[in-house]
Amino acid sequence: MYVAMNRFRIAPGKEQEFIEIWRSRDSYLDEVPGFQSFNLLQGPSTEECTLFASHSLWESEEAFINWTKSEAFRKAHANARPAKDIYLGPPQFEGFNSVL
Amino acid sequence: MYVAMNRFRIAPGKEQEFIEIWRSRDSYLDEVPGFQSFNLLQGPSTEECTLFASHSLWESEEAFINWTKSEAFRKAHANARPAKDIYLGPPQFEGFNSVL
Repeated sequence: MYVAMNRFRIAPGKEQEFIEIWRSRDSYLDEVPGFQSFNLLQGPSTEECTLFASHSLWESEEAFINWTKSEAFRKAHANARPAKDIYLGPPQFEGFNSVL
Repeated sequence: MYVAMNRFRIAPGKEQEFIEIWRSRDSYLDEVPGFQSFNLLQGPSTEECTLFASHSLWESEEAFINWTKSEAFRKAHANARPAKDIYLGPPQFEGFNSVL
């Protein structure tokens, strides 16, 4: 199993706006080979920001990498809106391979 | 769904030793109410460290919190060995609620 996470630091008060951006996206993931599941996760809040993570499970790292090179990926990211005032910095990607 | 992650920064060259510590643990998780799955995840490596995360899925945050107060939790952590030379600092806990 491979876990792909993108961590987002969101400005206080902008949480619902961020969630709505994700709710209205077409991800085109359902028919991607090796894709298992997707969740948008809300993590801890501090005075400075709220942590969110996009969290997807894949059969393998290879399946994930193949998706990032696919037409489905291009389409899913074509209409990503900037909305810069809600993001405190760029997202931070972390990929994990299951070892146990 | 609730995701509980503990992030560990492990010294270079100590990755297998860290994995073995987890492999030999009794987690007593299988019969805990609301527990869904556990994986030990290996993330990116830098010159400084390798990132690992313990990653468990729960029916709800409440189920996770109840577990942390249980006898099963106490037993699972009773024999946690220090092995301090493999850890670069304490683990960092992050809990996430699924919002989409």
